[in-house]
Amino acid sequence: MKNMTKINENYLKLQAGYLFPEIERRVNEYSRANPAKKVIKMGIGDVTLPLVPSVIKAFYQGVEEMSKIISFRGYGPYEGYRFLREAIVKNDYNNRGIQIDIDEVFVSDGSKSDTGNIQEIFGGNNTIAITDPVYPVYVDTTVMAGRTGKVLENGYFEGITYLPCNEDNNFIPDIPDSRADLIYLCFPNNPTGAVPLKDDIKKWVDYAISNKSIILYDAAYEAFIQEENIPHSIYEIEGAKKVAIEFRSFSKSAGFTGTRCAYTVIPKELMAYTSKDERYSVHSLWYRRQSTKFNGVSYPVQKAAFAVYSDAGKKEVKEVINYYMINAGIIREQMLKLGFKVFGGINAPYVWVKTDKNINSWGLFDKLLNEANVVSTPGSGFGPSGEGYLRFSAFALRENVIEAMDRIKNIRLQKINTP
Amino acid sequence: MKNMTKINENYLKLQAGYLFPEIERRVNEYSRANPAKKVIKMGIGDVTLPLVPSVIKAFYQGVEEMSKIISFRGYGPYEGYRFLREAIVKNDYNNRGIQIDIDEVFVSDGSKSDTGNIQEIFGGNNTIAITDPVYPVYVDTTVMAGRTGKVLENGYFEGITYLPCNEDNNFIPDIPDSRADLIYLCFPNNPTGAVPLKDDIKKWVDYAISNKSIILYDAAYEAFIQEENIPHSIYEIEGAKKVAIEFRSFSKSAGFTGTRCAYTVIPKELMAYTSKDERYSVHSLWYRRQSTKFNGVSYPVQKAAFAVYSDAGKKEVKEVINYYMINAGIIREQMLKLGFKVFGGINAPYVWVKTDKNINSWGLFDKLLNEANVVSTPGSGFGPSGEGYLRFSAFALRENVIEAMDRIKNIRLQKINTP
Repeated sequence: MKNMTKINENYLKLQAGYLFPEIERRVNEYSRANPAKKVIKMGIGDVTLPLVPSVIKAFYQGVEEMSKIISFRGYGPYEGYRFLREAIVKNDYNNRGIQIDIDEVFVSDGSKSDTGNIQEIFGGNNTIAITDPVYPVYVDTTVMAGRTGKVLENGYFEGITYLPCNEDNNFIPDIPDSRADLIYLCFPNNPTGAVPLKDDIKKWVDYAISNKSIILYDAAYEAFIQEENIPHSIYEIEGAKKVAIEFRSFSKSAGFTGTRCAYTVIPKELMAYTSKDERYSVHSLWYRRQSTKFNGVSYPVQKAAFAVYSDAGKKEVKEVINYYMINAGIIREQMLKLGFKVFGGINAPYVWVKTDKNINSWGLFDKLLNEANVVSTPGSGFGPSGEGYLRFSAFALRENVIEAMDRIKNIRLQKINTP
Repeated sequence: MKNMTKINENYLKLQAGYLFPEIERRVNEYSRANPAKKVIKMGIGDVTLPLVPSVIKAFYQGVEEMSKIISFRGYGPYEGYRFLREAIVKNDYNNRGIQIDIDEVFVSDGSKSDTGNIQEIFGGNNTIAITDPVYPVYVDTTVMAGRTGKVLENGYFEGITYLPCNEDNNFIPDIPDSRADLIYLCFPNNPTGAVPLKDDIKKWVDYAISNKSIILYDAAYEAFIQEENIPHSIYEIEGAKKVAIEFRSFSKSAGFTGTRCAYTVIPKELMAYTSKDERYSVHSLWYRRQSTKFNGVSYPVQKAAFAVYSDAGKKEVKEVINYYMINAGIIREQMLKLGFKVFGGINAPYVWVKTDKNINSWGLFDKLLNEANVVSTPGSGFGPSGEGYLRFSAFALRENVIEAMDRIKNIRLQKINTP
């Protein structure tokens, strides 16, 4: 090897680009060519309604505190302010009968960062299982960390255990024959909108316990669950605290995508192993990682997140979620009317539409963009098993959802679904 | 290997704990045992004056925008809003005659994150050179990434090229005999307060050019430079854009330690190499890293940072910096009077005090804590060459600095300096 600074070549294995920049590129290209057209965005899962009044009020207060010597805050705790972690534990866990320690909660700037960075504390030889289709960050960060071989012709990376989710298994992954050390699960699911019953997750918890595996459970869409009997946290399942890390976010539940606050729960009883088979606390590793590579979340932002748990905040946030879920219902209904098979959209803000065999994901994406000026997300962008599907985000304004559905109706997509 | 999830064992190589949590532990222990004593903190480099009025005003405006549909912002650009990056380029670079592209600036939540995370985009076999003493994050993140062997008896990690900084070289590292791929430099220096002349940095730029190395230049304390002829940016040196990444932060310059905003500059002409010796854009790797593992900085925080560059903001921020630098002068003067050798504190908010041979760093730290109730930082916490030094931070309130210096005077530390 010659003497020169080398790049991390794992990056070269990555596919053409992160999905959402690619969508943005196509949309910008279309808009430049057709400046008069009003494009309606239902692609990226980004909220559109403003922060609720209680959150704004607390956010202002946080800024005001930063303006006076007596109340000014410099560096905060790496793991987040106690006032916020207490509210999280009380409202998101204790009130559902789950015992979580305040010290087990780590506040961060986003679940995207956390679900990627969490891999740093685990050994490089651990095997990783990931559902397919899936939020692209899990796969991409796995590749970037050098935990895979190259990409195969079918779009899979060597070395990842893929867990296909499709109509046959109701988009709930089956337990694989082989063992995996780290398993990414996301429920309510992005992109399919699927939710499990307790028994579905129990299988995975049992698998993790008997295999000494760890589940990385992304519950960023928990707040959208409408039906009873759907678990909101993996810790509702007995034994899960021994084997699961849970990721939660204020991004979608309280409109924080541009405000940035999330949290991750690592129970103290969760153990991984050294090469000498000694048990080692995963919690302590993550604390070391965060204290060395992270300096906490902006104080006024933590104040704002805290207000989500006030009585008024809870009520206001629930209204916003209902608004988006009514959108989801409108999308579902229209796409069903047009003859599409439709999944999700009942306990999640995503509607997962089957494109049928005459057109693939990017084909339908381009058709909707060019003919109806509606931006969706091609299912294939979430992995090979997403091919033949399209994801609609319900996070748009109501009038835009209605207009988008009208436009789609008028381009006579029915033809696609006619053999 | 048995079937169980393994930890990243590189974490086990780390020393007792990140320096500042250890200081906090000792301070808390003292305070619990002596609840009546007023402890003055001049240890951690954390600001104490509130955000300036222009910044507060813009911060409020940012929050207000988040309260209305018409102005609400969801996900922002991964690399930061253009309005902020434009202001950065114009004020921090163009106004000093440096040509930097707006696209070469990446806004982030902190230089701590960036200086650690930047390693991810470089190959695992790159060699790393780090000054000693140094901000602990560079070494710790290097260890955590598996780029070192174990720690040696002298406190050095196998595999790191250490660059000792001491009185002999005026705390400016000498060019090493051997080659290193990545070199961490920090000026004005934390902890020594040393600043280089242009020629001092030119040597390093020339070294990097001829060795195809990359300099990771941490300029977080740039705003504290008072003297003429001290470079504010490494890009003032010809050719540096080919070999250097620069890290800057609003933390110390504008009191953002609890507000969180920083930025990193990666020139597009900066190249690293593939294993086939092909040139590869470091800029494009970092964009991929950030777009996959980061979701941008809180919008109101970026608005607040933008106000640092307004006419009023510049003036207000300068006044705050002057305030801290007057503190630094008071500390310098008192410690000199007590017979200590004193460094730094002229172009940096840190005063670097030699403890002399009768007492080591932690010894003097404990003495000052227990007898004067003043918190400093033991130099040895920054690396072996920091042994025998103490760092004072000038970021305290004026009355506390004066009281701390009075107390220290009264514990008759002179005895330590008498042979």
